[in-house]
Amino acid sequence: MLRWGIIGAGGVAKRRTIPGIIKAKGARLRAVMVRDIERAESIARKFEAEAWYDRAEGVLEDPEVDVVHVATPVYLHREFVLGAAEAGKHVLCEKPMALNSAEAEEMVEACRRAGVVLMLAFVLRFHPGIRALREILNELGELVLARVQLLKYAPRRPGEWRLDPRLSGGGVLMDIGSHALDLLSFLFGEVEEVWAQVGNRRFSWPVEDTAHVGLKFAGGGFGEAFVSFGVPGMGKFLEVYGTKGSAFVEAESPHTQGWRITYGGKVVEVPPADLYREIAEHLARVVGGEEEPLVPGEAGWYNMKVLEGAYMSAKEGRKVPISSLPVA
Amino acid sequence: MLRWGIIGAGGVAKRRTIPGIIKAKGARLRAVMVRDIERAESIARKFEAEAWYDRAEGVLEDPEVDVVHVATPVYLHREFVLGAAEAGKHVLCEKPMALNSAEAEEMVEACRRAGVVLMLAFVLRFHPGIRALREILNELGELVLARVQLLKYAPRRPGEWRLDPRLSGGGVLMDIGSHALDLLSFLFGEVEEVWAQVGNRRFSWPVEDTAHVGLKFAGGGFGEAFVSFGVPGMGKFLEVYGTKGSAFVEAESPHTQGWRITYGGKVVEVPPADLYREIAEHLARVVGGEEEPLVPGEAGWYNMKVLEGAYMSAKEGRKVPISSLPVA
Repeated sequence: MLRWGIIGAGGVAKRRTIPGIIKAKGARLRAVMVRDIERAESIARKFEAEAWYDRAEGVLEDPEVDVVHVATPVYLHREFVLGAAEAGKHVLCEKPMALNSAEAEEMVEACRRAGVVLMLAFVLRFHPGIRALREILNELGELVLARVQLLKYAPRRPGEWRLDPRLSGGGVLMDIGSHALDLLSFLFGEVEEVWAQVGNRRFSWPVEDTAHVGLKFAGGGFGEAFVSFGVPGMGKFLEVYGTKGSAFVEAESPHTQGWRITYGGKVVEVPPADLYREIAEHLARVVGGEEEPLVPGEAGWYNMKVLEGAYMSAKEGRKVPISSLPVA
Repeated sequence: MLRWGIIGAGGVAKRRTIPGIIKAKGARLRAVMVRDIERAESIARKFEAEAWYDRAEGVLEDPEVDVVHVATPVYLHREFVLGAAEAGKHVLCEKPMALNSAEAEEMVEACRRAGVVLMLAFVLRFHPGIRALREILNELGELVLARVQLLKYAPRRPGEWRLDPRLSGGGVLMDIGSHALDLLSFLFGEVEEVWAQVGNRRFSWPVEDTAHVGLKFAGGGFGEAFVSFGVPGMGKFLEVYGTKGSAFVEAESPHTQGWRITYGGKVVEVPPADLYREIAEHLARVVGGEEEPLVPGEAGWYNMKVLEGAYMSAKEGRKVPISSLPVA
């Protein structure tokens, strides 16, 4: 039984992560932390956690926490992942992994040295639609273009940390773009080069609200991620065009809903799953030595390299070879 | 009544252009030219043309030809458009306009000096779906991304001129990509910069079978053209994502079929039109001084600049500002 401690238990953690974890076999909620102690207590009572804290150190020093979920603003991921590793606790880190790939590498190395499991919360990898999709992909011939689009209208409160690039590392590309790029490299492998254009089409934020990213996969096909917080709704979120046919995956909310996959006149309806429950159960099996991690720290690090390349491309107006990025 | 002469009357001209022209009000087929005189005669008899030739000069020197349709392989467009201008004949030139933008400029200048009308056969501009679409675009808010995809499985005979870059100027990007890029600049205006990746995913041709092009419009939104001869079918060919909503246009063959436009839960079915008939009738009105040309030579020239920028981007791995291209 893994005992979980949540650092940053408000927001998405409260709405989606914790409800998933407490349903998971092999998982139990031990502690929650948010900066307001009364809110921490209220969240703890709601989900029947035994302990609550208003400082991350409370979770990191709690001897009854086995695994820490780091769900803070991005700029704090590094500090708390390193802290968890030092405390000998396993980690599930939210996406994007860090402010940049150098931080991500440091986090991977720290967990490796400490002998703790580090996983990234790219929960789309756990959607049952992935298995159905992989079978269909085998029928599509050579990849020509795979594109992921994640679009929603997402206004922000002034002063929100997501709008401060020093705290978030960037806008929509870091936020949901990280999911889009992870899904593409998960399905189609190594990225050889990336180009990108980013901009603000709906909101006058200090970070981008829209990003349009092109990829060339090492396997030869092209990829694309189109993400925006200024477009209300998206229809298809994944399209795969191959030399023998194409497949389309629809879900207005790919994380929480079932996927409708259409290809060659056929339709496959894949029911939804509780993806945080899935990842929590998987993590228990990984810690138990039964499975290899499906989203190891290296996946988050790689994702940061592609994100970094995309921002570099947008800034410098050139395609950026991913392999040429400094590894440290 | 405009009397038409067709240079390069085989292929698409025979299948689509001539059948449209002979139905057009204000148009009459005077002469056809293909390199085989027996085939020329057969085409002339089929469409009731009075004259047939096996050399382009036959059409250019025919005093009863008022307007020349140049439908040859791309590398001959310049020569025959200049010849038509010199002979004082109006011109409808097939796409792409020329091998490069320098040729296109020369063609525009020659027709301007000769006082003849030069139009490009970007016939999608004449589809009745355009009018319906423009009204819908007004409801979508600010443009975030507009993408056109034109996809088909199109094997070629070895030795076909389209496969020789000296004769065609390039592969799928020059061929149907020119339509995609023209449609985007027609609907969304000036292109500020372009990036592109091109490749061969299905065929081992000396020209690309797939191209993935990104645009930034001077108006601020993003654009995309995805074209391939290696993907069987396409579904939607135009998608417009705006800050207030999105619109999708479906037609497996946008030139010959009706358009199904969906947006905000509504569906508009626009019936097809004979686009070559439309452009021939329009050209008669332009020559008669009743209308301004909807696809002037300058549109073809601009299209060549964007195409040239896209190839340059793919080769050099950088975004190419369109305004910086040499005009000559």
